[in-house]
Amino acid sequence: MSALVSLVGAGPGDPDLLTLKALRRLREADLVLYDALVAPAALDHAPQARRFYVGKRAGRHSMSQETINALMVRAARRGQRVVRLKCGDPFVLGRGGEEALALVAAGIPFEVVPGVTSAVAAPGLAGIPVTHRGLASGFLVISGHAESAYEPVLEGLAPQSVTVVVLMGLKSRAAIASLLLERGWSGRTPAAVLMDASGEDARTWTGTLAVLATAEDDQGDGPGTIVIGEVVSLASRLYGAQAAPGRLAAAQR
Amino acid sequence: MSALVSLVGAGPGDPDLLTLKALRRLREADLVLYDALVAPAALDHAPQARRFYVGKRAGRHSMSQETINALMVRAARRGQRVVRLKCGDPFVLGRGGEEALALVAAGIPFEVVPGVTSAVAAPGLAGIPVTHRGLASGFLVISGHAESAYEPVLEGLAPQSVTVVVLMGLKSRAAIASLLLERGWSGRTPAAVLMDASGEDARTWTGTLAVLATAEDDQGDGPGTIVIGEVVSLASRLYGAQAAPGRLAAAQR
Repeated sequence: MSALVSLVGAGPGDPDLLTLKALRRLREADLVLYDALVAPAALDHAPQARRFYVGKRAGRHSMSQETINALMVRAARRGQRVVRLKCGDPFVLGRGGEEALALVAAGIPFEVVPGVTSAVAAPGLAGIPVTHRGLASGFLVISGHAESAYEPVLEGLAPQSVTVVVLMGLKSRAAIASLLLERGWSGRTPAAVLMDASGEDARTWTGTLAVLATAEDDQGDGPGTIVIGEVVSLASRLYGAQAAPGRLAAAQR
Repeated sequence: MSALVSLVGAGPGDPDLLTLKALRRLREADLVLYDALVAPAALDHAPQARRFYVGKRAGRHSMSQETINALMVRAARRGQRVVRLKCGDPFVLGRGGEEALALVAAGIPFEVVPGVTSAVAAPGLAGIPVTHRGLASGFLVISGHAESAYEPVLEGLAPQSVTVVVLMGLKSRAAIASLLLERGWSGRTPAAVLMDASGEDARTWTGTLAVLATAEDDQGDGPGTIVIGEVVSLASRLYGAQAAPGRLAAAQR
């Protein structure tokens, strides 16, 4: 097989949510460069490949983007098959576009293998549909990493007009909730914080936007998903009656 | 195995973008109820199951939602394993929440199996990352099906603040573009219309918001994805240099 770099989405964590194409690319890989939060079991599909962790933790890069790009290019030039395994979807808040541009600049053949994004799957597994007739006909996905990124978007957003999903935003949850309250959102808007949504250790907090705005910074900057909107109220209706969909799924895996 | 209804995301069309879990559920199924746009090859994973088409075309339901719900409940009560196979992700604009509530009301065990959503995958396969550092730190997904759904959301959205992805909106593309122009978006904002994004017959139109606003209603109400935002400009940089990622993927499937 000829050289190819595949930018592959690994999904939200549960290795069962890899796509068939991701599986095939892992099995064919000579080199796998993987991020934090990629499940070890996903890597088990590529026992034949060299596998390098290139993720970042707590805002600290373990490897610079330039080094990651150079590794991909060098391996491809040697005729190798490279899988760049990224959490969720490769093009959602993951610098996948920058990696693709680096490959284009180096003349390396590449492809994109879309994955299941946590922005949709984390709420879904917690019993929260990001859209629901009569409650929300759309959803907004933002990064909570920096105020400069989310503030201009949330500023004009009509109160309760869409479901707001915040990735990488645990640290900013009170600031984001306060901003929405200032812009006219009701304090009674349901809100949820989802941790490790597709894993064995899934935890969900649900409450209101007003309570979220008073959250203390006790959960640090770990991975997690914030969902704000009327659709959050469905979780108790779907959760309450039986095991949460995600947990049931885990039990029967 | 005991009765279970699985609300399964089939992904954006390419059967290779099914998840491993979706595959397993299809192989175990007694009954598969599938939507329009689900690839026939996905159904090939469930030769043992009864398979019913319950989708809608051109706004016309071939089967009412109540009938679909009743079919799921009846089969589960007989102890069957049911896969409700939905395009993309089951909770993105697909009435998956309503189906889940119907199952809860009937006391039927169910689970959600998230899928790859077209909202992210269709742009990605066309070389358009929905987020990209310096261009967009978030994205908005809306239904273009009814003005009452998208108008309140787009009304206050700060110009060029996020990537706008419109599903089921081909018919409304000129109306949506005009609305954004009225709200201060630049006519030079790049825009794309993506048809059959993950299939063999993928087609992409790219241009500007100003041109999109003058589009004639010649593409009907078929499936397609509209993307509006600076990230669309990346398509030519990723596309131009070589085969588009999606097409390359198709050729090597």
